[in-house]
Amino acid sequence: MIINMHEGATDQEINHVIERVREAGYQAHVTRGTERAIVAAVGSGGRRHELEALAAAAGVMDVVPIAQPFKLVSRQVKPQRTVVNVSGVSIGDGSFAVIAGPCSVESREQLFSTAKAVKAAGATLLRGGAYKPRTSPYEFQGLGLEALRLLREVREQSGLPVVTEVMSTEDVDVICDHADMLQVGARNMQNFALLRRLASTKKPILLKRGPSASVKEWLLAAEYLLAGGNPNVVLCERGIKTFETETRNTLDLASLALARELSHLPVIADPSHGTGRPTLITPMSRAAAALGADGLMVEVHPCPERALSDGPQSLDFTGFSHLMRSLAEPLRANGTASAAAAD
Amino acid sequence: MIINMHEGATDQEINHVIERVREAGYQAHVTRGTERAIVAAVGSGGRRHELEALAAAAGVMDVVPIAQPFKLVSRQVKPQRTVVNVSGVSIGDGSFAVIAGPCSVESREQLFSTAKAVKAAGATLLRGGAYKPRTSPYEFQGLGLEALRLLREVREQSGLPVVTEVMSTEDVDVICDHADMLQVGARNMQNFALLRRLASTKKPILLKRGPSASVKEWLLAAEYLLAGGNPNVVLCERGIKTFETETRNTLDLASLALARELSHLPVIADPSHGTGRPTLITPMSRAAAALGADGLMVEVHPCPERALSDGPQSLDFTGFSHLMRSLAEPLRANGTASAAAAD
Amino acid sequence: MIINMHEGATDQEINHVIERVREAGYQAHVTRGTERAIVAAVGSGGRRHELEALAAAAGVMDVVPIAQPFKLVSRQVKPQRTVVNVSGVSIGDGSFAVIAGPCSVESREQLFSTAKAVKAAGATLLRGGAYKPRTSPYEFQGLGLEALRLLREVREQSGLPVVTEVMSTEDVDVICDHADMLQVGARNMQNFALLRRLASTKKPILLKRGPSASVKEWLLAAEYLLAGGNPNVVLCERGIKTFETETRNTLDLASLALARELSHLPVIADPSHGTGRPTLITPMSRAAAALGADGLMVEVHPCPERALSDGPQSLDFTGFSHLMRSLAEPLRANGTASAAAAD
Amino acid sequence: MIINMHEGATDQEINHVIERVREAGYQAHVTRGTERAIVAAVGSGGRRHELEALAAAAGVMDVVPIAQPFKLVSRQVKPQRTVVNVSGVSIGDGSFAVIAGPCSVESREQLFSTAKAVKAAGATLLRGGAYKPRTSPYEFQGLGLEALRLLREVREQSGLPVVTEVMSTEDVDVICDHADMLQVGARNMQNFALLRRLASTKKPILLKRGPSASVKEWLLAAEYLLAGGNPNVVLCERGIKTFETETRNTLDLASLALARELSHLPVIADPSHGTGRPTLITPMSRAAAALGADGLMVEVHPCPERALSDGPQSLDFTGFSHLMRSLAEPLRANGTASAAAAD
Repeated sequence: MIINMHEGATDQEINHVIERVREAGYQAHVTRGTERAIVAAVGSGGRRHELEALAAAAGVMDVVPIAQPFKLVSRQVKPQRTVVNVSGVSIGDGSFAVIAGPCSVESREQLFSTAKAVKAAGATLLRGGAYKPRTSPYEFQGLGLEALRLLREVREQSGLPVVTEVMSTEDVDVICDHADMLQVGARNMQNFALLRRLASTKKPILLKRGPSASVKEWLLAAEYLLAGGNPNVVLCERGIKTFETETRNTLDLASLALARELSHLPVIADPSHGTGRPTLITPMSRAAAALGADGLMVEVHPCPERALSDGPQSLDFTGFSHLMRSLAEPLRANGTASAAAAD
Repeated sequence: MIINMHEGATDQEINHVIERVREAGYQAHVTRGTERAIVAAVGSGGRRHELEALAAAAGVMDVVPIAQPFKLVSRQVKPQRTVVNVSGVSIGDGSFAVIAGPCSVESREQLFSTAKAVKAAGATLLRGGAYKPRTSPYEFQGLGLEALRLLREVREQSGLPVVTEVMSTEDVDVICDHADMLQVGARNMQNFALLRRLASTKKPILLKRGPSASVKEWLLAAEYLLAGGNPNVVLCERGIKTFETETRNTLDLASLALARELSHLPVIADPSHGTGRPTLITPMSRAAAALGADGLMVEVHPCPERALSDGPQSLDFTGFSHLMRSLAEPLRANGTASAAAAD
Repeated sequence: MIINMHEGATDQEINHVIERVREAGYQAHVTRGTERAIVAAVGSGGRRHELEALAAAAGVMDVVPIAQPFKLVSRQVKPQRTVVNVSGVSIGDGSFAVIAGPCSVESREQLFSTAKAVKAAGATLLRGGAYKPRTSPYEFQGLGLEALRLLREVREQSGLPVVTEVMSTEDVDVICDHADMLQVGARNMQNFALLRRLASTKKPILLKRGPSASVKEWLLAAEYLLAGGNPNVVLCERGIKTFETETRNTLDLASLALARELSHLPVIADPSHGTGRPTLITPMSRAAAALGADGLMVEVHPCPERALSDGPQSLDFTGFSHLMRSLAEPLRANGTASAAAAD
Repeated sequence: MIINMHEGATDQEINHVIERVREAGYQAHVTRGTERAIVAAVGSGGRRHELEALAAAAGVMDVVPIAQPFKLVSRQVKPQRTVVNVSGVSIGDGSFAVIAGPCSVESREQLFSTAKAVKAAGATLLRGGAYKPRTSPYEFQGLGLEALRLLREVREQSGLPVVTEVMSTEDVDVICDHADMLQVGARNMQNFALLRRLASTKKPILLKRGPSASVKEWLLAAEYLLAGGNPNVVLCERGIKTFETETRNTLDLASLALARELSHLPVIADPSHGTGRPTLITPMSRAAAALGADGLMVEVHPCPERALSDGPQSLDFTGFSHLMRSLAEPLRANGTASAAAAD
């Protein structure tokens, strides 16, 4: 940490800061410039928050962190990339995982027909919501346990591992029994009680970036999972909130690339929520593939105009099949190049 | 809802939309312009989501909602303002509630001295965190149950009702036993499992606006509470995430005023999180008072530079006392004027 | 500046940075921590950009500025507050300036009736657009020279100094001949050619904050004017672009307060553009008055629903008169308190 | 336009709106729902702003535009894609244009060596700033006319057409004499005086998206150029301002794809400003190529750590050469696929 003193800071104030830095378990190195003094807190193993609180001490202008706040998710700690195994399907091993399926499980017919169609087109995992986070209490909230049972059944039939969202600590056990991978939705990215509970399960977790989360906050949310004992984490960029309203969110592919640079965890893109417009899903999927993303998550529905949720951004079977074909070439091009660039 | 057809939409596509509007339980009124057709879905009691999904139908450009999506929180449904009673202290009755106290409960001495100081300066409720949502797993996470016990004890001694944050459905019962008002933090504003659980408690709830939540999303989160049976909701504007980094968040006072215009619920401001800078807390508190806010939430600590969390944005006792004195005049000025304007 | 080296930076890389810091005209102080080295560049009078470019040197993680980049606008350089005299009306002297009038000058009748009404209600300056920045080329672009002539005429008749926007270096001379204060619109805040030209005029300038400008960028735009020789600058906060679309912009009153804290220049608020909603103009004006703003800019039109521009956010005469009455009390309350707080 | 009436709107208010719609040159179609009335203004050739101003009329809740506000830039008006010819180099014809060079022209040696290097690596146009928009008046402002002369000279020698930024109407003529394409910088995107002047030149224009401009505002800025008589416009996405500070801006590739969907103009990406981080330039360039962008603009400098501007985000010759090689495969993959998808 660097503690910047105000221009008019007195010797007494500077000495107080030095003393507090030492109390916090660090060495203090002072640089006195012509205009102001700077105190560098050096060392590891000290109490970081005590340094941060010095922003409130007399004579201090601000406190600037130097080291990254995350550890276990960092490539400095673990340079080799993590591969997450989801019931036999690997994410992060250089292949390109495609998670596809309906926003919500609505019926057996809807789920099974979609599973069949996305598998035929090349998807490697199936998604489907049982418990749905909905902005309004008057919207469809998901079929709950009935949906979980359908998911377990369709997994047996199709052979596709199943991903579904968990919204509450109370649902963790039952979802673990029925699904292969648990998704933490964007609005729950900093639901720390939920993260702590999931850390103890060892199940693969798909951690979506919050709509106003910085890359650092996203990685720190993942740090909760790793620090709690669960290394099986896949990150998912799904767009951030910005002033642009023509797209539902702003899919931030540079942050996806940056997360892969800073962390060893696999990172995938969700162009369905990221754009909210069917015509943009294919171009953004191609872009994600070309920059080295580890996969995609895409919403597919037999009849988007009759979907109970997210219909406007869902692809129908033909659209999904077209998307998968359009990815073949960028992925081939990607091959050795991006794998080399990424590692 | 208005369904805007594309310029080249065929009669077949328009007729399909008309048919679907009727299936969804609405009347369809068509306006054929020189360039495009517009279908208005009229009526109430239909299935709104079926109209929204029509955005995915062939020939449809977009679907534009007309009516506000919230009901019970709306002033159209309940014109008179709600007054929330927190163990004898009213919020929303034209008085100006001041909730003050430390970010986290750190010790008996810290909590009791703060309670005494803020009460003497004029605070009407006491805040103090027991379970803390922290960006990093390596930061202080709160004293938990020990903090709750201290809060109950300090309430007895000081007579100030106590507000503390709830982060998980599993903690709801124990917090209800110890505190007078439960705070839903900004990062949990759309933790719908938690909202549903809190709706069943009838306890006063302080619902913070999420850092990327629009006013509509915020009011819809409150709608979960009211629809679930708990009318005792106070809204709290605590700043949104924007590009400006000189302040921790951007305190959006216009949205505070707008929330009071659209809803009958009381709305207060949190200038501590809203600005993150002690020098801005007093001016923004005065501004909130002048525009008709129902109160404030402010972080106060005996020694901010030794706080275990949020020290840099906490006021010390002198600073808080100065803040309270500076509010006297705008509040007097406010008196009849803003009360009249608000209602 | 602090140059943070990467963890694995070699001695050669660190020495190269030290050498470059010295070449740039600074002293280099090195702190070697357990994990990484930090090089502090100390001194004044060096070439700042050469330090910034070191972010591209081998082994460098990032370069963090310590000192504020602005000088002449800073209260560190000039602690006493600036008072700008606009043809006899002072802004920044503790009084509360109210600039009111139509978005665009549309006709003699419209302009003269508005001037009369706003003067009667207590406005101290008159605004009116002659050259209008419009998002679309098909919108009303202003009456140009004809409007300027009307502005000069109404000034004679009403005695109110006149503020109008300048969009191009080519119009500076003619506008200086007709108006008392020149406004730089939000979209031109970083039109540096225009700023340089205006710096040479000595005329009072109203510098609006750009919709995506940070406080620092805003103050640096003002620095162009002061560095070029024109100290007569009034800053105007008019809202920034955020994800919230219920309001036209997000009026950032905390940044207004911060700009007054960092700079000696007067700062006013524009709640018309800042909110875009007539019902929010009065509450936000009261808030601005209470936190110590130096004044307001408000759009007023005889018949908003017939305005050629910005009708939806304009007050009619009655609305403006009501606004002015509602300000009386917060301003009286403000009196000594905020003046004392500000200086 | 749809004019939504308030729930309590009276017949008199509704009739007034109908009358005003007709006065504005449109037909009025009224739909009376159970809760509120809707007035649709139908037809073309009316005065759009008179409808917009009705938002201020009594009983009106809001006015929602249906038709897109731009015309000449729209693919509805001109379905076939525009190809812009820059002194023999085509942009928008399915090839992938690469504009490379230094942020600022600093010296003959710097410019000529860069031109040679980028041409050898495959760049098709050369960039170099003569007049620089700098946030601070104390930063390097460009060599001006001397830089223009060097640009003209290097063009003769290298054969690469030259792109340089124009900041002021007063510089338009001299820049037209020396450069092949004029760039309008992000901060001048809504400098309408400049756009109008450039519309009269017929020179190819590179129009950067403003940091807070929506796609619609960006296309409307281009509309100024086309409506003024200059069809030779290339759009450039260079990142928007968001809360994420790890990257300099947020490169919004979905908006790039959307601009190509809505408009027939070529659209390129600027990953240098878009990310501000050298390690992200190659992945984002690959992404842009894969989604069908018409080209790139990239900053290249012989020695980034000695650059007078934008060093931290510039590639050196080796880095640029590596970038160009990494594009070969996605562009080959792109070939027929994206061309087909785009048209």
